[in-house]
Amino acid sequence: MTNQYDNPVFFEKYSQMLRSVEGLDGAGEWPALREILPDFQDKRILDLGCGFGWHCLYAAEHGAKKVVGVDSSEKMLLRAKKQTASDVITYIHSAVEEVSFPTESFDVVVSSLVLHYIRSFADICRKVNAWLVAGGDFVFSVEHPVFTAQGPQDWFYSPKGKKLHWPVDNYFREGKRESCFLGERVEKYHKTLTTYLNTLINMGFEIRQVIEPQPTERFLKDVPDMADELRRPMMLLVAARKKNKSD
Amino acid sequence: MTNQYDNPVFFEKYSQMLRSVEGLDGAGEWPALREILPDFQDKRILDLGCGFGWHCLYAAEHGAKKVVGVDSSEKMLLRAKKQTASDVITYIHSAVEEVSFPTESFDVVVSSLVLHYIRSFADICRKVNAWLVAGGDFVFSVEHPVFTAQGPQDWFYSPKGKKLHWPVDNYFREGKRESCFLGERVEKYHKTLTTYLNTLINMGFEIRQVIEPQPTERFLKDVPDMADELRRPMMLLVAARKKNKSD
Repeated sequence: MTNQYDNPVFFEKYSQMLRSVEGLDGAGEWPALREILPDFQDKRILDLGCGFGWHCLYAAEHGAKKVVGVDSSEKMLLRAKKQTASDVITYIHSAVEEVSFPTESFDVVVSSLVLHYIRSFADICRKVNAWLVAGGDFVFSVEHPVFTAQGPQDWFYSPKGKKLHWPVDNYFREGKRESCFLGERVEKYHKTLTTYLNTLINMGFEIRQVIEPQPTERFLKDVPDMADELRRPMMLLVAARKKNKSD
Repeated sequence: MTNQYDNPVFFEKYSQMLRSVEGLDGAGEWPALREILPDFQDKRILDLGCGFGWHCLYAAEHGAKKVVGVDSSEKMLLRAKKQTASDVITYIHSAVEEVSFPTESFDVVVSSLVLHYIRSFADICRKVNAWLVAGGDFVFSVEHPVFTAQGPQDWFYSPKGKKLHWPVDNYFREGKRESCFLGERVEKYHKTLTTYLNTLINMGFEIRQVIEPQPTERFLKDVPDMADELRRPMMLLVAARKKNKSD
C-alpha cells in the first residue's frame, strides 16, 4: 500500500487539520504528551515518524544538541524542511521499519501517532532499546487498542444517527485493520495493551508513565462533539526508560 | 449496599461456578496469574478479598511462612476456614478498605478480582505500599476498564440475539456502575487504565507485568461461547514491585 501521506488529496486534507496548521498546540494530546517528555537539554533526539517536524523543532528549541527526524513521506519531509528547519535537525527519508543507527547513539526517542501503522512493535522496541543509552527515554503516543480493535474506527449509531457507544471487537486478534481517515483508506495494525506494555518491559524498559489523554478545556469548548472523546479512550501515551543491565 | 456474597441466593450461585468448585484450576485467568506470581518460599503473604481462600492455600502450599486472607463476607470465610485451612493461614473478617497492618509487615500482597468493587484504588495502593517491604510484590487481577466502562457489562446484540460487539462508553467517567452478576444486582467502580497503572507508578511501584489474559485451549474447548472472550478483554492482571527509595 502506498503511503497515504504522499497521496496529494490525503496530504492536502491532512495539511488542513488543526494539528497541521497550529502544530503542537493544535494537537489535543499535546499537553499530556509534553508533561511526560524528558528534559531535552544537550540531548540527542530521534523522532520516528516525524511528519511536519513539530516535535523535532520543539526538541531543538528546548536545548537538544542533535535531532534526527525520520519519515517515510517525502511530501511531509519537504514541508518539514521548510517549516521546522533548524541547524541541529536532520531529516531522513525512510520507513521507520527500515532506518538504522549505531547502538547507544540517542538519549531520547520519541514517536507521535506512528507506531500503530507498523506491524511489529517488538522489532521497533528492540531497535529503540539498542539505539538508546542506558537511562535513555522512549516516549510515544499511539492510537489506543480500544480505538483500533474492531477496525472501522467509528461509533455505533442508532438508526437516527445518534452515537450509541464505541464498538470493541476482535481485541485479541492483532494485525491489519482498514479504516477511513480523511476520506481515504488507511491501513493500521491493532495491538493489545499487553503487547505495547509487556513488550517494553520484556525488552528492558521501565514503564514510567501510561496516560490515556482526555480533551483539555479548550478543546471541549472550541471543538464540536469533543465531549464524545470522554466516552472512550482514543490514544495511549507511554513514557519508558531503558534500564541499566544491573537494574 | 449489602455484600452480595453474604446474600444466600447469590452465594449459592457463586458456589456453583467452576472457579468455586474447582478452585484455581476452574478460573480461566489462573494460568496467566500464576505466571506472574513471585516465589512464596518463606514469605509473608496478604490476600485482599480472599473469598474461599484458594490463593491463600496456594501460597501456603508453596512455602509461605505466614498468610493472611481478608474478606468482607462471613459466608465466604466460613467456607474458607473449612476448605482451605492451614496452620500458616489466618482469615480476617473485614472490608478490604478498613483493614490495617503495621508497615513493612508483608513480602507479597495479592488480590484476585476484588479491587473493582472498591471506590478508591489510590487509597488501597498507598496502604499496600506501606504494608510491603521494599522489593515486595503486589500482584492483582481486576475487571478490565473496557469491561467496566459502560456499566451493564453485556454485549450489544442484534435484534435476533447475535452478539454484535462489546459496547464501550463513559470511559473517562470513573465511579459507580451497576450490573447484573448471577442474577443479582452488583455495584462496581470503573477506573481507567491510566488510574490503575499511573497510580501504582506514582505511589512508588515499578510495573513488572501487565497481562490481559486470553482463554486457554482447555477453556476454549470445554466452555460454550468461550471464543467470545477473544473479542474483548475482560480482565487486567498486573504485577508491581515496591521500589527502594533510592531507585
